[in-house]
Amino acid sequence: MPLMKSWVASANSADCPFPLNNLPYGVFSTEGEDPRCGVAIGEMVLDMAAAEEEGLIELADEPLFDLPFWNVLMEEGPAVWAALRARLTALLAEGTKERDRVEPLLVPLAEVTLHMPFMVSEYTDFYAGRHHATNVGTMFRGAENALPPNWLHLPIGYNGRASSVVVSGTPVRRPWGQLKSADHALPAFLPCRRFDLELEMGAIVGADSDGPITVAEADANIFGYVLLNDWSARDIQAWEYQPLGPFQAKATATSISPWIVTKAALEPFRTDTPPREFELLDHLKDAGPMLYDIDLAVTLAPEGKPATTIARTNYKEMYYSSAQQLAHHTTSGCPMNVGDLLGSGTISGAGKEERGSLLELSWGGKEPLTLDTGETRSFLQDGDTLTLTGAARGDGYTIGFGDCTGTVLPALENPYAR
Amino acid sequence: MPLMKSWVASANSADCPFPLNNLPYGVFSTEGEDPRCGVAIGEMVLDMAAAEEEGLIELADEPLFDLPFWNVLMEEGPAVWAALRARLTALLAEGTKERDRVEPLLVPLAEVTLHMPFMVSEYTDFYAGRHHATNVGTMFRGAENALPPNWLHLPIGYNGRASSVVVSGTPVRRPWGQLKSADHALPAFLPCRRFDLELEMGAIVGADSDGPITVAEADANIFGYVLLNDWSARDIQAWEYQPLGPFQAKATATSISPWIVTKAALEPFRTDTPPREFELLDHLKDAGPMLYDIDLAVTLAPEGKPATTIARTNYKEMYYSSAQQLAHHTTSGCPMNVGDLLGSGTISGAGKEERGSLLELSWGGKEPLTLDTGETRSFLQDGDTLTLTGAARGDGYTIGFGDCTGTVLPALENPYAR
Repeated sequence: MPLMKSWVASANSADCPFPLNNLPYGVFSTEGEDPRCGVAIGEMVLDMAAAEEEGLIELADEPLFDLPFWNVLMEEGPAVWAALRARLTALLAEGTKERDRVEPLLVPLAEVTLHMPFMVSEYTDFYAGRHHATNVGTMFRGAENALPPNWLHLPIGYNGRASSVVVSGTPVRRPWGQLKSADHALPAFLPCRRFDLELEMGAIVGADSDGPITVAEADANIFGYVLLNDWSARDIQAWEYQPLGPFQAKATATSISPWIVTKAALEPFRTDTPPREFELLDHLKDAGPMLYDIDLAVTLAPEGKPATTIARTNYKEMYYSSAQQLAHHTTSGCPMNVGDLLGSGTISGAGKEERGSLLELSWGGKEPLTLDTGETRSFLQDGDTLTLTGAARGDGYTIGFGDCTGTVLPALENPYAR
Repeated sequence: MPLMKSWVASANSADCPFPLNNLPYGVFSTEGEDPRCGVAIGEMVLDMAAAEEEGLIELADEPLFDLPFWNVLMEEGPAVWAALRARLTALLAEGTKERDRVEPLLVPLAEVTLHMPFMVSEYTDFYAGRHHATNVGTMFRGAENALPPNWLHLPIGYNGRASSVVVSGTPVRRPWGQLKSADHALPAFLPCRRFDLELEMGAIVGADSDGPITVAEADANIFGYVLLNDWSARDIQAWEYQPLGPFQAKATATSISPWIVTKAALEPFRTDTPPREFELLDHLKDAGPMLYDIDLAVTLAPEGKPATTIARTNYKEMYYSSAQQLAHHTTSGCPMNVGDLLGSGTISGAGKEERGSLLELSWGGKEPLTLDTGETRSFLQDGDTLTLTGAARGDGYTIGFGDCTGTVLPALENPYAR
């Protein structure tokens, strides 16, 4: 599919993250006004509350967009999702007769504040990238036992903490936690020393289910995708995670990019999962191409200094797709709801520079990275700003997600001082 | 504290679970009417929506009780919780002048349907009973490695699935899942064969927090308690839980008793946690007696047959209190919200008949239980009804929770048939 031209001129450049082909959904506010739904187009945001108020978009009896989240639109179901996309495409395409009515409803992106685009019902994080799982397993259990026996048969996941999900730009405070070093007999309560990122994609569930669903049904229930940084306290995790998995190590924050890129916008970029070492059981088999070709990158900028790109990889490196993860999530009868967020798991490629966490990039701290500034990093330092970017590259256009950034604040001096 | 007498005569018997000393909060409906808040007193329910409508209870400008959940009352904070309890006590105590206005608002318990008493924001399940952890650890890792190294230093927990929490009486369907038996090279997708219960208490968080809180603050933020059955698919769990913990094994259902017994009602039953093998770090130290003396029991009734009591124990067997669990939950800065539910972890005593799961009672299936009917059980069979009960016994009165029951339905024949 080629670039679809818009009368919003800034949307027509091949590098613009928000061409007419994209139409990602966010929540924005302007000074003194309440957060409401918006759609990015070029360097502008279409005020969806105003468009609905003006009668330009009529999809339901009740307002869908004068709200600080997209959950209500999601609840309307896939037919309405498609109708909305078609209507937005018509309103913003070159040659539309409605330009005069739409143009006053555009707000420059540079003038808005972006908020969480949806209410997170529950958050699940997976461990479904093979290179990541192999790297981590090799470090902790040796190369021969790198992948747990179940890994090639099901997407391993754990429930995360929805309350900790924040939008890009929110600073993240280094947590305290219980740590136990090998050379101490007893644990201590201290600020985290091995604070890390995890480069992931997040899939947003757009429809309820109440029992096992197939992979094809799961794919149909996904509304869209965001970039996701699952901030991880590796030293807290090492002490706490046996036998029931990560808990406080992953509860400080999970950052997401501010724009929901719809599944519809990503259709041209579908690609197959990698070859299977073991045939998957029927209920997890691919139902067509289930991943997407999305270039991903991570930059790290020390406080007041320029950023270094520390990793480049692609979403197609995943072993399990989000649809397969969602299908697995329902096998037990677990009810899934609109607004559930599924983290893909850390996305790493085969190469050394394609690793989506500092744990892997610095090989557990044994091989610190050298930044372009000359500084080194094993794990994150206070003041570091991390930025995740993602781009699917089409014929003369780019589908972008908006940056997913966060700056590490120093730990509280005394977490119990009031 | 002795029995407080009520003009509702059925509330004054020593065995009544709902005397004036209790006043537990639930959500009920009568035929053709919407679910709304109610308070149990003797064999009756006080219709709180009607009491508010009548002007008998005036605590806020907006309605607090004509709602199918208690979350809005919780959000009003501890001063309002106390004012409500004082007002209800005054209205229902022997000798009140307002009996004539209150009596028409009572509905017989026998005529109501009970619903989920609150909206579960997020659900966390702990592993904080020492006998349970020791039993399970002995079975899986041998007696010498029974407790993981971290166990005596922090309350181990994992995030559960809020969408799976159901009220007592809801049938629970045996799940399908990926199973891998030792004598098969590959896993298979099959109905669970080792379906189990876990006898727990659930603590309901009644106040938001946004950073680390002390144990005393955590205790103040707890609104009340319910009985909780964390249904567990042991065979699914065995295959999936390494390395990130239980996931689909615990996502089919978690049943809770229908009445929130407030922290205030349980005050006379506070008791100390057990002696500590290692001194806890300061942020987890007990801030006074943090557990409660609550007798607990589990009965199992095969379909159409009488029930057998399969376990008796007490909440005071826990090693970590709910307040300590909540404090630990906030150490990383994890935001906690009104409506968060914390499962205590399985409660087992030292004795063989004090074990809160079939996994322990049948020692992994090696020592099947014999029921009073003559049948045996290693794990649950289709049609089995489990009932959890709890009672704190005071001077001439009992604080009850209402039963927490659930019947096992057979697995779907084909989970993907529509």
